[in-house]
Amino acid sequence: MTFRIDMKVRDYECDIQGIVNNSVYFNYLEHARHEFLLAQGVDFAALARDKINLVVLRSELDYKASLMPGDHFYVTVEVVRESRLKFAFVQNVYRSADDKVALQAKVIGTAVNAKGRPFVAKELETLIT
Amino acid sequence: MTFRIDMKVRDYECDIQGIVNNSVYFNYLEHARHEFLLAQGVDFAALARDKINLVVLRSELDYKASLMPGDHFYVTVEVVRESRLKFAFVQNVYRSADDKVALQAKVIGTAVNAKGRPFVAKELETLIT
Amino acid sequence: MTFRIDMKVRDYECDIQGIVNNSVYFNYLEHARHEFLLAQGVDFAALARDKINLVVLRSELDYKASLMPGDHFYVTVEVVRESRLKFAFVQNVYRSADDKVALQAKVIGTAVNAKGRPFVAKELETLIT
Amino acid sequence: MTFRIDMKVRDYECDIQGIVNNSVYFNYLEHARHEFLLAQGVDFAALARDKINLVVLRSELDYKASLMPGDHFYVTVEVVRESRLKFAFVQNVYRSADDKVALQAKVIGTAVNAKGRPFVAKELETLIT
Repeated sequence: MTFRIDMKVRDYECDIQGIVNNSVYFNYLEHARHEFLLAQGVDFAALARDKINLVVLRSELDYKASLMPGDHFYVTVEVVRESRLKFAFVQNVYRSADDKVALQAKVIGTAVNAKGRPFVAKELETLIT
Repeated sequence: MTFRIDMKVRDYECDIQGIVNNSVYFNYLEHARHEFLLAQGVDFAALARDKINLVVLRSELDYKASLMPGDHFYVTVEVVRESRLKFAFVQNVYRSADDKVALQAKVIGTAVNAKGRPFVAKELETLIT
Repeated sequence: MTFRIDMKVRDYECDIQGIVNNSVYFNYLEHARHEFLLAQGVDFAALARDKINLVVLRSELDYKASLMPGDHFYVTVEVVRESRLKFAFVQNVYRSADDKVALQAKVIGTAVNAKGRPFVAKELETLIT
Repeated sequence: MTFRIDMKVRDYECDIQGIVNNSVYFNYLEHARHEFLLAQGVDFAALARDKINLVVLRSELDYKASLMPGDHFYVTVEVVRESRLKFAFVQNVYRSADDKVALQAKVIGTAVNAKGRPFVAKELETLIT
C-alpha cells in the first residue's frame, strides 16, 4: 500500500503570488520521505547524529497545479531501487478537495557514511519494493 | 475554552544545533494564530486579498525548552484587548510528551486598511474575551 | 556574458546534517533568477502585483557537493527558449573557494496571465539568448 | 563602532501580504548576530560542532515598518551584559533608502555546554562593551 501523509498549507508558506512557494514543495516532500522512513523504522535525525547521512543526489519536480492558503493536501511516497547504491523516491502531492495532482516528483538519494562515501545501508534495503 | 492546535516538528525546521531553529517558533505561532482566527471565521489570506492586513506590532518570546526532531507539540492561543486598536495574542508552545512549556509568547497586533492605517476590524471585535 | 550573483551561506539555512538543506537551493536559485530578471528590467514582484505570474513548470536539480555554514558561493543564470511558451533557466551553484560545482539545475518556466493562461510575455522575449 | 551588515530582501522571504514575513526578521537578526560574532572570532557553527550552543532565552521585537521585495536594508548589532550568564544583543533593522527603522530588537542569550548548562564562555567575555 502506498504511504500517504496528510498536511495543510500554512499561510507563511505562500509567497507574493499568493500561492505556495516552489521551494516549499521540497520541504513537503522531505517531510513526507522522513515520515515514510520513520514508519519503516529508519530515523533520519538519529542517523544524522550517528554521522550516517541520507543525501539527495538528484530531484525532478513537475509542478502541475498551485496549492493555495488553507488547502488540504496529501503526499504519497514509494521507493524503488535506482542502482546498487541509489534509491529513488517517487512522490506525488495531491490537493485533498478533488485529488488533483499538484506536483509529481522523483527524488534520487543514497546513504553516505561518516567519511562521505556512499554505501548500502541495511536499514534501507528492506524499503525497496 | 483555550484554542489549541497540535503539530509535529519537521526535520527541516531544525538547525545545526539539532533543535528547532528560533525563527521557526514564529512560524508555529503565526500558523496557530491563523488557525485560531479561521476557527472564528476570520480568514487571514482572504483579508490580505482584500487589502486588509493583520500586522504584528510587537512580539515577546521566552524560550523555555528546545523542541527536537520528531517532537509532537501543541500551541495554545488566547486573545486579549491591549488598547482600542491593538489586541494581544497570548500563546504557549507545549511539548506533548510531558506538557512541558517550550515557549511562552505575547504577540501584539492590529488591523491595517488598504491605506496602511490601523482600524477597529469588526471581524476581530468578537474575538476579544 | 553569463549572469552571476555572489552569496554566502547563512547558518539558519543549514540543517541537522550540518549542511545547507536541500530545499534552500531552490531559494538560492529563485533569488538568482529574480536578480537576473531584474538586471534585464523584469521585476518579478511588480509583475505579481499586476497579476502576471512567472511560474515554474519543472525543475531538475543535481546535487554535486554540499555547501557548509559560512561558505561563500555564486549562482550563474542563463536562459534558453524551451518552446514557444516555455523558457529554461540553466543555473549552476559554485563554491567560491575553489569554484567547485555544488549544484546544477535546469528550471523550466512560463508566464501566466491573470486568468492563469500561459502567454508570451514580451518582457521575456529579449532575455532569450 | 557599531557592527553593521548590509542585506537585500529576497522575493521568497515575502508573504501573501507582499511584505517580508514576520518570522524572516528572526533570520535576518540571527544572521547578523552570527556575522558579528564571527567578526570577533566566535564561530557559531564551529561551537555547535563542539557541543557548545549559543541559545536565545528571550526576544523582543518591535515592528516599525515593513520591508518590501527588493528593499536594501542593514542590521546593526551591539551586545551588552544582561547578567553574569546572560548577554543581550541590541539589534536594529534599517531600510537603506532612507535609514528608516524597520525593526528594533533585543535578543537575550547565553552559552550552554554539552550538558545543557549555562556557563560563561570566555569567547564571549571580550564582546561585552
